[in-house]
Amino acid sequence: MTLTTPVDFQDSFDIIVVGAGHSGCEAALAAARLGCRTLMLTLNLDRIAWQPCNPAVGGPAKSQLTHEVDALGGEIGKMADRTYLQKRVLNSSRGPAVWALRAQTDKREYSAVMKEIVENQENLSIREGMVTDLVLGNNDEVIGIQTYFGTCFEAKAVILTTGTFLGGRIWIGNKSMEAGRAGEFAAVGLTDTLNDLGFETGRLKTGTPARVDKRSVDYSQLEPQPPDEEVRWFSFDPYVWVEKKQMNCYLTRTTSKTHQLIKDNLHLSPIYGGFIDSKGPRYCPSIEDKIVRFADKESHQIFIEPEGREIPELYIQGFSTGLPENIQLAMLRTLPGLENCVMLRPAYAVEYDFLPATQCYPTLMTKKIQGLFCAGQVNGTTGYEEAAAQGIVAGINAVKFVNNEEMIIFPREESYLGTLIDDLCTKDLREPYRMLTSRSEYRLILRSDNADQRMTPLGRKIGLIDDRRWALFEQKQANIVAEKERLYETRIKERDEVAIKIVNDTQQKIKGSATLADLLRRPKFHYQHLEQYGLGNKDLTIVEKEGAEIDIKYSGYLKRQQIQIDQITRHSNKKLPSDLDYMTIDTLSMEAREKLTKVRPLTLGQASRIGGVNPADINALLVYLELRSRYQSV
Amino acid sequence: MTLTTPVDFQDSFDIIVVGAGHSGCEAALAAARLGCRTLMLTLNLDRIAWQPCNPAVGGPAKSQLTHEVDALGGEIGKMADRTYLQKRVLNSSRGPAVWALRAQTDKREYSAVMKEIVENQENLSIREGMVTDLVLGNNDEVIGIQTYFGTCFEAKAVILTTGTFLGGRIWIGNKSMEAGRAGEFAAVGLTDTLNDLGFETGRLKTGTPARVDKRSVDYSQLEPQPPDEEVRWFSFDPYVWVEKKQMNCYLTRTTSKTHQLIKDNLHLSPIYGGFIDSKGPRYCPSIEDKIVRFADKESHQIFIEPEGREIPELYIQGFSTGLPENIQLAMLRTLPGLENCVMLRPAYAVEYDFLPATQCYPTLMTKKIQGLFCAGQVNGTTGYEEAAAQGIVAGINAVKFVNNEEMIIFPREESYLGTLIDDLCTKDLREPYRMLTSRSEYRLILRSDNADQRMTPLGRKIGLIDDRRWALFEQKQANIVAEKERLYETRIKERDEVAIKIVNDTQQKIKGSATLADLLRRPKFHYQHLEQYGLGNKDLTIVEKEGAEIDIKYSGYLKRQQIQIDQITRHSNKKLPSDLDYMTIDTLSMEAREKLTKVRPLTLGQASRIGGVNPADINALLVYLELRSRYQSV
Ligand SMILES: Cc1cc2nc3c(=O)[nH]c(=O)nc-3n(C[C@H](O)[C@H](O)[C@H](O)COP(=O)(O)OP(=O)(O)OC[C@H]3O[C@@H](n4cnc5c(N)ncnc54)[C@H](O)[C@@H]3O)c2cc1C
Ligand SMILES: Cc1cc2nc3c(=O)[nH]c(=O)nc-3n(C[C@H](O)[C@H](O)[C@H](O)COP(=O)(O)OP(=O)(O)OC[C@H]3O[C@@H](n4cnc5c(N)ncnc54)[C@H](O)[C@@H]3O)c2cc1C
Repeated sequence: MTLTTPVDFQDSFDIIVVGAGHSGCEAALAAARLGCRTLMLTLNLDRIAWQPCNPAVGGPAKSQLTHEVDALGGEIGKMADRTYLQKRVLNSSRGPAVWALRAQTDKREYSAVMKEIVENQENLSIREGMVTDLVLGNNDEVIGIQTYFGTCFEAKAVILTTGTFLGGRIWIGNKSMEAGRAGEFAAVGLTDTLNDLGFETGRLKTGTPARVDKRSVDYSQLEPQPPDEEVRWFSFDPYVWVEKKQMNCYLTRTTSKTHQLIKDNLHLSPIYGGFIDSKGPRYCPSIEDKIVRFADKESHQIFIEPEGREIPELYIQGFSTGLPENIQLAMLRTLPGLENCVMLRPAYAVEYDFLPATQCYPTLMTKKIQGLFCAGQVNGTTGYEEAAAQGIVAGINAVKFVNNEEMIIFPREESYLGTLIDDLCTKDLREPYRMLTSRSEYRLILRSDNADQRMTPLGRKIGLIDDRRWALFEQKQANIVAEKERLYETRIKERDEVAIKIVNDTQQKIKGSATLADLLRRPKFHYQHLEQYGLGNKDLTIVEKEGAEIDIKYSGYLKRQQIQIDQITRHSNKKLPSDLDYMTIDTLSMEAREKLTKVRPLTLGQASRIGGVNPADINALLVYLELRSRYQSV
Repeated sequence: MTLTTPVDFQDSFDIIVVGAGHSGCEAALAAARLGCRTLMLTLNLDRIAWQPCNPAVGGPAKSQLTHEVDALGGEIGKMADRTYLQKRVLNSSRGPAVWALRAQTDKREYSAVMKEIVENQENLSIREGMVTDLVLGNNDEVIGIQTYFGTCFEAKAVILTTGTFLGGRIWIGNKSMEAGRAGEFAAVGLTDTLNDLGFETGRLKTGTPARVDKRSVDYSQLEPQPPDEEVRWFSFDPYVWVEKKQMNCYLTRTTSKTHQLIKDNLHLSPIYGGFIDSKGPRYCPSIEDKIVRFADKESHQIFIEPEGREIPELYIQGFSTGLPENIQLAMLRTLPGLENCVMLRPAYAVEYDFLPATQCYPTLMTKKIQGLFCAGQVNGTTGYEEAAAQGIVAGINAVKFVNNEEMIIFPREESYLGTLIDDLCTKDLREPYRMLTSRSEYRLILRSDNADQRMTPLGRKIGLIDDRRWALFEQKQANIVAEKERLYETRIKERDEVAIKIVNDTQQKIKGSATLADLLRRPKFHYQHLEQYGLGNKDLTIVEKEGAEIDIKYSGYLKRQQIQIDQITRHSNKKLPSDLDYMTIDTLSMEAREKLTKVRPLTLGQASRIGGVNPADINALLVYLELRSRYQSV
């Protein structure tokens, strides 16, 4: 049931955020910091920004998202920098496009610190409560929400970030229970409300592995995974950088016993046993999935990660399962080092309702209900970083909406964040969506190191970057520019002592003379080598040096990619009028007409990425628009 | 359904504690520290030792309980000393029997610190899980539990400390929802299990007031309630004493507007509206109860208390209500200083199943099922201290049971803890039981200051007091004895300079000479006065000085009370054989036969405190026992 006015509102806000997970917190903080009176509602005040699965932030593609959110003025990067237990740069031996910082975090500290931040944020109130209904105005725009206990709050915009909670049901083996996560209520009522309003909802699934007591593990049998010696940071703001004592992670492997046990009991898992059939994330498969799909593989890596400094729980990464609890324990005990382990929490899966995000514009506002935004797992993604990225975008655009300003669309060419949202709003996703570097056509440009260059000017314009951070940003960019100039202009001559030394060491000739930039372009020659020869600039930070080096080293590729982008954007940014009646455009294939009618893309670019809309259709659309605009201008 | 063997147990423990509230934590810690392999199960790992109501420990009678638990080797006193926000001694102007230390605590820190302690306790494992069933052995003794997801754990003893969770339902106005507390699952299944086993369960109710955002309060209109300047401690162990910056509480009052608003809306509250009729605690009435019951009172005090250092929530003490949320806000805004307040959480009530504790022996083991113990709110009490006191007793006795040793009964003459348990197991309580000083006949002896003298030797014998603490205890007692000797023996003569001064100051004569003890026995003359005249002993701690003073000042009363106790205990400790068939003792009144059959008291003293068993019945029992023992010994 959805209420329409008049309703007795207990209080009135500009923006209401439903949910206080990674998405809700970013949305609420952005909204409040931009001056909107904001209310954030959550089912459980003590699990704000909770990490129900992996206690970690970053990794491939996710680290880029994290840097981008930070560069826009968001919180997730700072959170990881404040609460890390260990940090490592993954793929550091490969190119900068795939470098990925990953932080193991203290899950409880993470939640506690975020709680303190949101609770003390000006303009922001936090309440425990279950939102069950929306209040609509005379034009079917959202004007508030109602909670389970009947209280109504007014708002000009509402952002839904309900995660895995709508109609949540958790599974261990073939037993299930209504719950949004272990130990937390499912949200009831809101799915019905949304369905009644004509929204389509679907069912997805995700899972989390068991937790083991660290006191019951034989570390001598595990391979340590130490942290990096030099800590790197997610945030571009050095004010949050605190060096901490780091911890080890560990590695073990599945054995033939593990595989046999799983094969023997496959019929007991909810998926293979046929108890549930909702789609799980392809990129975080359960261990039984891995063993079935890669039947010839004899062993899989299992990472053992601490969940905090003071807590006994270890996260068993790579060991998600839908098998019953007693088999889980037996499975764990087949892993070297875990023969006598005590299982503190069993692995479980959760099934929940999501709203296919093709029902949103890339501003994350829903197409059906003005002022209603959706962000995070409810849009069909998984992952904290994906949730945070959508959250900040929804927060910013809700503010724009409230202030009657033009909303912001993040082009996929400029960020992973834009890529993510464009994919969500365009593609017909039927399984949880996770960010991967392979999802971006522009990954050489969308790097971690230049996320500030790509996003901070926009964050400044929006109002989320204050003077102090802006000054830092400008200084950094100026330093990189100046350093590039120096590198391009400083020459060493064949006969110089240092040149002779370099030729000797590298076995590569210098003909006549070479600029420092020339040297940097050579394979395996890095800024640190310049420094070894006294040719570096000591006044720069490590990221400034890296920034200059990458720009120079990859300038060829970068230029080519930029040209591609420019060509594409010329067409793809072409706006599609909202009143287009695709069904009547008979130059389009029938499938394209249906898909376009359903998705209602905002731009030609977005249209081109819809499955079933092929290049011929795009061409037909271009021609149609051309004709129509000529016709209209007569 | 209750399982009987054979069952596939996932793991095996000596003792399983169901619940991780104030009762469960004490029980589990005592059990583990006494060397039993212990498992503690809870519905929510993140609300261990949660304070769902008043963020405070201590106060009248509750402080005595807290000191007693500490003196036995329990945790609650240390917890309050570690996490206090402010401390005050209540009734400090009155006699030492009613002095009561009270600590405002940081509710989140409290829970986090307790979590760390239980998680790092040797022999103790903690798991999230919902216990739904008991596993019984061949003789109907408990041998394990089963969780919702079907896992079974084996144990020699099981302690139920399920608080407000069994069949929990929360209410705001006339709307309700299944929940054990706001934001937490109710426990399903276990009540049925217990009923099937023949246990009687009843329904009780308790409530908690609204929380208000501290940033929305006008403090200039509130009366500050500052902390004491000199901090006092619950624990007898100085190792946990940490001086902290303290915070103020505040005072406001209800106004005629408050009263009118409540009267106008009374029909909307669950009790007066007739939606629920379970009994609430008489000593924590709702504000509407107070206004109905004390209709001529124009105003009630309302205390405003911080819930933590870093959190915006204020606890509005004295303002519990069952009225709907919108009326709650209006009510709050009638209080001076709260005119513009923001309500962060509404007041609510919770209804839950309890087990009348007459079904337990005063060891807290149930009479029906060997090895099954009950402690805390599930036994019909309210309050953290009451829960903790029962928890440590159940923990200790479960260990005794597991080790096949005689269980311990705490006599009501020696502690509030004993009084509490004796009342619970004897009286037919139909409303939540709270500890009050008036419940003890021996309150002059059962003081806070001598709780260590009363309990620590027992704690030592049990094994919960280590050498360090024992040495501290012995030193303190020796100091008090020595000081008392000194005070009894040191004389000042009429002509001494100091005597002249004292006579002058106090306007009371000294005839010939007086011992320091004589001086101390005078009204309004305290140890601190001795010190003013240079007659004190600087080497003693303040509690040692107080201990000596109280013993001397009240020696007359104390002796008389001790004689009474001795007389009573002579008879009342007389054991009642467990095979007595009361229904056949025709010298007893019919009511007494029924009550005695139901309660099955262990001692004559316990029998005498059962409602409906009068002195004539006790006499008849004495005679019967006398005759029976003569007959048997023939
Ligand atoms: C069991 C499990 C396993 C997972 N496994 C993985 C994995 O393998 N890989 C991966 O990347 N990610 C995984 N995740 C997903 C990850 O937790 C989420 O992607 C991320 O937390 C989503 O953030 P969010 O902000 O969208 O939602 P959440 O963090 O789920 O937060 C939702 C918030 O909404 C609130 N809420 C919901 N409904 C209501 C309502 N009606 N009224 C008021 N408040 C409401 C909740 O209380 C909560 O605060 C897993 C999650 C779970 C639960
Ligand atoms: C709304 C409210 C208002 C209150 N008001 C007052 C008041 O005014 N005055 C006062 O003195 N006291 C009040 N209290 C009571 C006080 O909170 C309790 O007395 C105290 O917390 C009881 O401690 P306990 O250990 O017995 O139970 P709790 O602290 O309730 O802990 C129970 C534990 O058992 C666990 N549990 C329950 N069932 C299961 C199961 N089946 N399986 C596994 N785990 C289970 C729970 O997860 C929890 O950890 C109030 C409590 C509530 C909820």
